[in-house]
Amino acid sequence: MPEPLIVRWLDGTPDAAPPGGTTFGVPFARGAVRAADMLSVRDADGSPVRHQAWPTATWPDGSLKWVGIAVGAPAPVPETLTVEVGPVAGGTVGGAPVLRAAQRDGEIVLDTGVLRCVVPRTGTDLIRSIERAGVVVAERGRLVSSVVDTVDEGAPVVHRTAFESRVGDAVLESSGPVRAVVRITGSHGGAGREWLPFVVRLYFYAGARSIRMMHSFVWDGDEQRDFLASLGVRFEVPLRDPLYDRHVRIAGADGGFLVEAVRGVTGLRRDPGITVRRAQIEGRATPPTAEWNPEVSDRLDLIPAWPDYTLSQLSSDGFSLRKRTGPGFPWIDVAGGTRAEGYAYLGGPSGGFGVGLRSFWQSHPVGIDVRSATGERGEVTCWLYSPQARPMDLRFYHDGLGQDSHEQQLEGLEITYEDYEEGFGTPYGVARTHELTLFAYEATPATPDLAADARYASRPALLQALPGYLRSVQIFGDWSLVDRTTPARAALEDKLDFLFDYYRSQVEQRRWYGFWNYGDVMHTYD
Amino acid sequence: MPEPLIVRWLDGTPDAAPPGGTTFGVPFARGAVRAADMLSVRDADGSPVRHQAWPTATWPDGSLKWVGIAVGAPAPVPETLTVEVGPVAGGTVGGAPVLRAAQRDGEIVLDTGVLRCVVPRTGTDLIRSIERAGVVVAERGRLVSSVVDTVDEGAPVVHRTAFESRVGDAVLESSGPVRAVVRITGSHGGAGREWLPFVVRLYFYAGARSIRMMHSFVWDGDEQRDFLASLGVRFEVPLRDPLYDRHVRIAGADGGFLVEAVRGVTGLRRDPGITVRRAQIEGRATPPTAEWNPEVSDRLDLIPAWPDYTLSQLSSDGFSLRKRTGPGFPWIDVAGGTRAEGYAYLGGPSGGFGVGLRSFWQSHPVGIDVRSATGERGEVTCWLYSPQARPMDLRFYHDGLGQDSHEQQLEGLEITYEDYEEGFGTPYGVARTHELTLFAYEATPATPDLAADARYASRPALLQALPGYLRSVQIFGDWSLVDRTTPARAALEDKLDFLFDYYRSQVEQRRWYGFWNYGDVMHTYD
Repeated sequence: MPEPLIVRWLDGTPDAAPPGGTTFGVPFARGAVRAADMLSVRDADGSPVRHQAWPTATWPDGSLKWVGIAVGAPAPVPETLTVEVGPVAGGTVGGAPVLRAAQRDGEIVLDTGVLRCVVPRTGTDLIRSIERAGVVVAERGRLVSSVVDTVDEGAPVVHRTAFESRVGDAVLESSGPVRAVVRITGSHGGAGREWLPFVVRLYFYAGARSIRMMHSFVWDGDEQRDFLASLGVRFEVPLRDPLYDRHVRIAGADGGFLVEAVRGVTGLRRDPGITVRRAQIEGRATPPTAEWNPEVSDRLDLIPAWPDYTLSQLSSDGFSLRKRTGPGFPWIDVAGGTRAEGYAYLGGPSGGFGVGLRSFWQSHPVGIDVRSATGERGEVTCWLYSPQARPMDLRFYHDGLGQDSHEQQLEGLEITYEDYEEGFGTPYGVARTHELTLFAYEATPATPDLAADARYASRPALLQALPGYLRSVQIFGDWSLVDRTTPARAALEDKLDFLFDYYRSQVEQRRWYGFWNYGDVMHTYD
Repeated sequence: MPEPLIVRWLDGTPDAAPPGGTTFGVPFARGAVRAADMLSVRDADGSPVRHQAWPTATWPDGSLKWVGIAVGAPAPVPETLTVEVGPVAGGTVGGAPVLRAAQRDGEIVLDTGVLRCVVPRTGTDLIRSIERAGVVVAERGRLVSSVVDTVDEGAPVVHRTAFESRVGDAVLESSGPVRAVVRITGSHGGAGREWLPFVVRLYFYAGARSIRMMHSFVWDGDEQRDFLASLGVRFEVPLRDPLYDRHVRIAGADGGFLVEAVRGVTGLRRDPGITVRRAQIEGRATPPTAEWNPEVSDRLDLIPAWPDYTLSQLSSDGFSLRKRTGPGFPWIDVAGGTRAEGYAYLGGPSGGFGVGLRSFWQSHPVGIDVRSATGERGEVTCWLYSPQARPMDLRFYHDGLGQDSHEQQLEGLEITYEDYEEGFGTPYGVARTHELTLFAYEATPATPDLAADARYASRPALLQALPGYLRSVQIFGDWSLVDRTTPARAALEDKLDFLFDYYRSQVEQRRWYGFWNYGDVMHTYD
């Protein structure tokens, strides 16, 4: 008899309501469930929750083995959800928003009930626009990259070529009342070349104020001459508010934030007035300038404005944060710290846009740029590979050590245990996936709310069935739950814990991080 | 009546004997000392210590106000030294080494009794050679730098020009039985240009196995087109030992070290034997290969050797450590961490060379390179400005904000309090000083000994007179020692401590570090 199917939050119930919905997978015992539409979901109070369910694997008898279940953005956040076969007794799903997806000529339109997003089917852009409350907060979401022709130390000349995404197609891959997925395929194009094919999936959930973006690309270059110098996701941000009401927020480490207005009116020789200062510090609209101290409002043009910000995380342990007054002017150190969370916001009282990258510092070299925040269209770029870093070098690590014949290669195996043959070391075809969260805001949020969003983007809240249930449906073969009922069993559990903790801690001790390394676990050390 | 003149170690008595000598300055009361040669120095046991003393300031009556005193490399390390007027009662200086300095045609030769250094008076090199026990451990010590012509993001072409030091002159500035100072002046030359004038002083002490190197340079470029891309001190290291006996050591954070042989014979599929492994791990000469397991010694050519290592500290909080099998091959991540101490060693059982930079991570972007460690001449470069970093940009930070007239500039003063005039922001003439320590070794030291040297280079042990004495000679005007004898006085001391600690801690909180910022203290914050 299977246990009840209760799912809970893997890292504990989130403090703040997640901005988007979530999808989880659940298994069932053989013969228990014939079709996904037999399932219902209820919260801890027994109220039904709108969901969407689809089979992902079946048993030999045709019954469902694994099912994907999506739920919309929850408010309030349930401690747990229960999945049941059959309708929820005595309840129908209430007034939660329903997701709408429409394919039109040349574009796909998604509406979560909170934000609206248009995805074009051709061109350079993956996202045409993101709107919230009828206001466009971001446009022209696209991929950008560049390559240099040498990484030789002291090379007298370096040539750089820039690329942008070229969409091959965008399709509505799945759609329902709770979740829709758009798949966008294409490659990076520029200077008469197309390379670095990508697949981007956008996930939309009912009630969500954020979009989940999964980006994968495949390396198909020539590692002897193509040194990737940057790879990023860029958005344009329409800016309507006066410079002193425009705000930049960039997450640092441990919940810290850069909190600045594009034109700051605090810390000056003259005081604009406490209500002005307080509003700007909190990111709210300041009073009309007629209500300011004219000693400040008459001299706004003499206060430097800062359109450009850059956060660089070039190693797993340190980031730098700089700003400048524009192209042609130097970068000024603002702050620095250890492990940045990987989130930036640009906007004002009329609306704003945010972007966050999961496992940001772990995936170094990464960065976030804000540009042109003094103009009508700002720009936010989340760098999956920072242009501040030494370019990516995917060449093989040695010259073959003279192992030209199979006999010599066998000799090599005898000593280094490295299975070398010419061509075995090619990076052609390696791929990397990144997860981003895009946020649409009605106005600049308070910093604690932004901090919650940054945390969500760096580690999204996930739902997971309990171990007891997973065991009861006999899905993973023969295994048992943690069992410390006898000294011998406790000793075994201790040993397993020790080994697990050891290998996990080695990632940190050896800084096994970075664009290509993070996520791997080593098991052999010298 | 002045108190006794006792000097003690500023940060506590060093655990290990400092590799070099030290110089300290002491004041005297008006009329107390007529000539520096009246002074003597004794240790805590009363034994006389060989020293060298010279006046640095006098009172109006001609008596000595400040005196510089140098002592040689001490072993054992005295807890304190006492400076007295008149000879030490009943003692003469014992057999401690005497420094020898000689000016010859075209070169200056310094001999500490432990190491010998030749400084040429012309050419590219600041140091011709450093010998220990008759073996040359370093040669061709020189400055290297490079400049790029643009820091524009996405510039399609970047041109780099390399420079090397060109010595104008080297003179023996001072010399005695304990200390000699060589001053080397010159500039950076290359591509038909000479710029970046420098002054380097080398300090030699009796009995020292290290050399103190003070490097100052002056910026005299055009900040609109000269973006300094690197600045370093480079040495060639003659290498005589087999690859498996050559060793690289690079300091990480908190006493940690990269400890590797150029060709490692541990962690392989076959075992060379415990004595071989143990010797290599400890940096000692391995037994003759005839005594090894031939499964390893017959296949040495199939084990990759690593000639090149790079440590980069591009922010105050994180460093990366990489190695490669040679030019044209990629950099492989080895390790990383927080705040590297800034020290590297290259050598083997026949001798080795080390270099350390004071306040290394605080002066980011910095780095240390080891190159060509598989050849007959390795190379060690200590980067004062890392070539891995974005180039140095010394342009002024804004466009003038339309303040073209003095009236407009006065208006600007009314609001930003920034004294702007065209040309006020030029960096022409700014200067920066770095302190390095160069170490000569008879053989690869054990790691704890290297860690002590790295610590010494990053924070040299300094001698300082006690506050009570400084006050007793009435040298700094009207001031008093810490006084908590009444509640009111204790409250004042608490307030002073609070303010001192506050401003000191702001350096860390705001990451007030970096090539140009470190050493400054800010006192106004928004």
